[in-house]
Amino acid sequence: MLVRTCCNKFISAVKSSVEYRIICKKSDFTKNIYNVNRRNFNKLEARHFQFFKDILGGERMITDQEEMRSYNEEWMRCVKGISSMALKPKTTEEVSKILKFCNDNNLAVCPYGGNTGLVGGAIPVFDEIVLSAELMNEILNVDENSGVVVCQAGCILENLDNKVAEIGLMIPLDLGAKGSCHIGGNVATNAGGLKLFRYGNLHGNVLGLEVVLADGTVLDCMSSFKKDNTGYHLKNIFIGSEGTLGFITKVALQCPPRANSITLAFLGLQNFERVLRTFKKAKQDLGEILSAFEVLDTPTMEFVNERLKMNSPIGDFPYYLLIETSGSNEEHDSDKLHQFLESCMEKELVLDGTVATEPHKINAIWSIREKIPDVFKDCGYLFCYDVSLPLENYYVLVDDMTQHMGKLAKKVFGFGHMGDSNLHLQVEVDEFTREIKNHIEPFIFERTKQLNGSISAEHGMGFLKARYLNLARPYNTVKAMENLKKLFDPSGIMNPYKVLPW
Amino acid sequence: MLVRTCCNKFISAVKSSVEYRIICKKSDFTKNIYNVNRRNFNKLEARHFQFFKDILGGERMITDQEEMRSYNEEWMRCVKGISSMALKPKTTEEVSKILKFCNDNNLAVCPYGGNTGLVGGAIPVFDEIVLSAELMNEILNVDENSGVVVCQAGCILENLDNKVAEIGLMIPLDLGAKGSCHIGGNVATNAGGLKLFRYGNLHGNVLGLEVVLADGTVLDCMSSFKKDNTGYHLKNIFIGSEGTLGFITKVALQCPPRANSITLAFLGLQNFERVLRTFKKAKQDLGEILSAFEVLDTPTMEFVNERLKMNSPIGDFPYYLLIETSGSNEEHDSDKLHQFLESCMEKELVLDGTVATEPHKINAIWSIREKIPDVFKDCGYLFCYDVSLPLENYYVLVDDMTQHMGKLAKKVFGFGHMGDSNLHLQVEVDEFTREIKNHIEPFIFERTKQLNGSISAEHGMGFLKARYLNLARPYNTVKAMENLKKLFDPSGIMNPYKVLPW
Repeated sequence: MLVRTCCNKFISAVKSSVEYRIICKKSDFTKNIYNVNRRNFNKLEARHFQFFKDILGGERMITDQEEMRSYNEEWMRCVKGISSMALKPKTTEEVSKILKFCNDNNLAVCPYGGNTGLVGGAIPVFDEIVLSAELMNEILNVDENSGVVVCQAGCILENLDNKVAEIGLMIPLDLGAKGSCHIGGNVATNAGGLKLFRYGNLHGNVLGLEVVLADGTVLDCMSSFKKDNTGYHLKNIFIGSEGTLGFITKVALQCPPRANSITLAFLGLQNFERVLRTFKKAKQDLGEILSAFEVLDTPTMEFVNERLKMNSPIGDFPYYLLIETSGSNEEHDSDKLHQFLESCMEKELVLDGTVATEPHKINAIWSIREKIPDVFKDCGYLFCYDVSLPLENYYVLVDDMTQHMGKLAKKVFGFGHMGDSNLHLQVEVDEFTREIKNHIEPFIFERTKQLNGSISAEHGMGFLKARYLNLARPYNTVKAMENLKKLFDPSGIMNPYKVLPW
Repeated sequence: MLVRTCCNKFISAVKSSVEYRIICKKSDFTKNIYNVNRRNFNKLEARHFQFFKDILGGERMITDQEEMRSYNEEWMRCVKGISSMALKPKTTEEVSKILKFCNDNNLAVCPYGGNTGLVGGAIPVFDEIVLSAELMNEILNVDENSGVVVCQAGCILENLDNKVAEIGLMIPLDLGAKGSCHIGGNVATNAGGLKLFRYGNLHGNVLGLEVVLADGTVLDCMSSFKKDNTGYHLKNIFIGSEGTLGFITKVALQCPPRANSITLAFLGLQNFERVLRTFKKAKQDLGEILSAFEVLDTPTMEFVNERLKMNSPIGDFPYYLLIETSGSNEEHDSDKLHQFLESCMEKELVLDGTVATEPHKINAIWSIREKIPDVFKDCGYLFCYDVSLPLENYYVLVDDMTQHMGKLAKKVFGFGHMGDSNLHLQVEVDEFTREIKNHIEPFIFERTKQLNGSISAEHGMGFLKARYLNLARPYNTVKAMENLKKLFDPSGIMNPYKVLPW
């Protein structure tokens, strides 16, 4: 079994660390940096503290300033809140009582999972009460027959995966943060990750949810069935709503069989037209076993070589592909991959390549891709973007950006989950200035739109991106989102200043 | 390439035909049979007709009584409305103008797709204006690179599938009604079908929607990307909402590669415990190529033998399985299936079996499963149920029902999409009586709940099941659904009397 860092995470990490360097060296709070106005929520009083203490006892109610630090800062320190209390319920009933009380007393709440979201979604902006799922970590049922796991929302993704691995299944979600992220947070943010290409998104894989609404109502949308058409599919409203519509307390997930064999190819190609043809061919030839299709460009590979002394195992080429297969029969999978590669060579799609079937070799090749964040750690200022693009325009944006930046950029890097049409574009400059930012940002969003792309791909809006929702979605759509918020949380106590423009 | 009738459809057809025999021999309208009260909508006046004529012209506005018959009756004739007008817009803008006008003038609307839903969802109950998508049938884009098709909602499923087949892709949805059902209707009803087991549900496969709301607002939730987390996932609210929250005008769907090879096994087994073990083994051994796992019991197979003179190709056994594989390499797939079967035989899970790899043989074996509706055509009255159950309880319900009915039933049949935990249970009696119905219905719903199942599996609520929503979902959940309806359609003009209890 492979253990690898998902690139989602490290791209985000790079992005956030950059913002941190730009923003957080001011050592200030989010509210000051972004000039946010506190909404008219009540402030915590002694009687509020007493109520929560009566429910949870002293141990599950954090008020110590030192202890509160981890609840007030994103681990990359790009946002910083001033909350004075974190609550750690264990049951749905406790969550319900807490939210009802907060709603009745106009106290704002910040749902908190594993703190791995990286867009400031789980960190209070002001003094919101932190409502942590960390003690709601019971795996309630694993149905060996149908392959469905039911658990509390605070279960750590890796624990769930280990649990279902015991019976030959897997969680169809893989993130670098899997050792600390919560399944409830994953669902709330519609987390993507590397397995999405093969196993689909959480809207398809989540079979049931239990959610507590702002007023304490427990919304039972639980189901363990792939087919369950009884009324509106309410659970899907909460997938990707980032704790702003309700607090997810339970999750039912379908789990596919765990792959017995994994093979990995690392290939060098001449141009992007051949990258595209190779992708289409891979989908046809590898079909049901294709599990990852990642691309790196020359600047990225050169940077990896230069900074980490990790050389390409196949020499230097304009583009590099990592193609992974996962299947149930090693011999068949290897056979398919070799047939595919031979055919690629014959058609001169691929100039050179290497294939790994043993775990340590696979890990060695994957590490080239995984080490990218380390590479960027010590470079100049980095502007990072996460977009989806139609594949024929996938690399056009990188070329356009390179041309647009001219000498203003030290380098422009393009790489990403090409199988999901998801590009990570990064621009390295000597140092951050407002002028350079303004030179990049109107351009990249407008150009992405011209190329029929999406300016936000696999990350939630959180706090950091909420301001840009109007750029990404039409007026009527944003209006409908605001109406949905009013329906489920009329007082607006659930995770204020997140997702929707503030 | 196989062409087969999806069992979803024929089970529904059997169910509806039975209801037809029970109900429609009264030759009456839905409103009378079910004693429904017409809500306080306005009736069509000359000025309304003129407005619609100005938009659509005479040809796309049907008012002829004879022509209206097909819009007023479900093709199985289990429901019958009294609408006097059907409108056939071609564009989103026309839909928007029509709905705005209807909303402003308090005129009820019944969205109409391919009329294949079979639960009365697309047929007016009273004089609702029928809004048909049949002329909105343009395929707008097929992205060969990413495998995404974008089309208007009235495209016929089979046409879409044929279109993407040209470039080696498939629509991840297969229904018996595919020659006439619309993709918009499929999405609106969250249609299941046989491919759901392998390719997942529409919440996972639909990437974008355009929807017109009751007040004419065009809600643009279009996207062609697997990763697009920009705000709430509004599109999912409309998947499975059966036209009661808005009218779907455009759909973007992801399309997987078309399978190159299909193999089919027909197996005989001793008892349900071995059926279950075989299912788990099939998931492990066949992994990524397993594409169908269907079960039939002895009464069902005997009925097929008796009525259609179609014998089991392997002799008589208590349970029969149809296991299909679909993959990209015929040799590999066949190899996997044979290894799996040999191992099943060795472990004495399976008593006998046959495998087909040639299309005509595959079709011959599938036809045993497909012919079940023909079998039931001439039997006594049939009560039909479509439930999901945890697999360990999958057949318990059939045994319990058999015992519960005693001599009241001629036979109890159990078969279905076991891979999706979806059981079709049918009870044959000499003739329909209220007493027998009352003997069955409280029992089956209560017992299904006791067995942790769902009383509604792959069908929408439509008109016929809307009354039972309160049985299937908790109070708070139904309340939230009603609030959602009020949010998107405050006047309640969109498909009244459907989905929610009336």
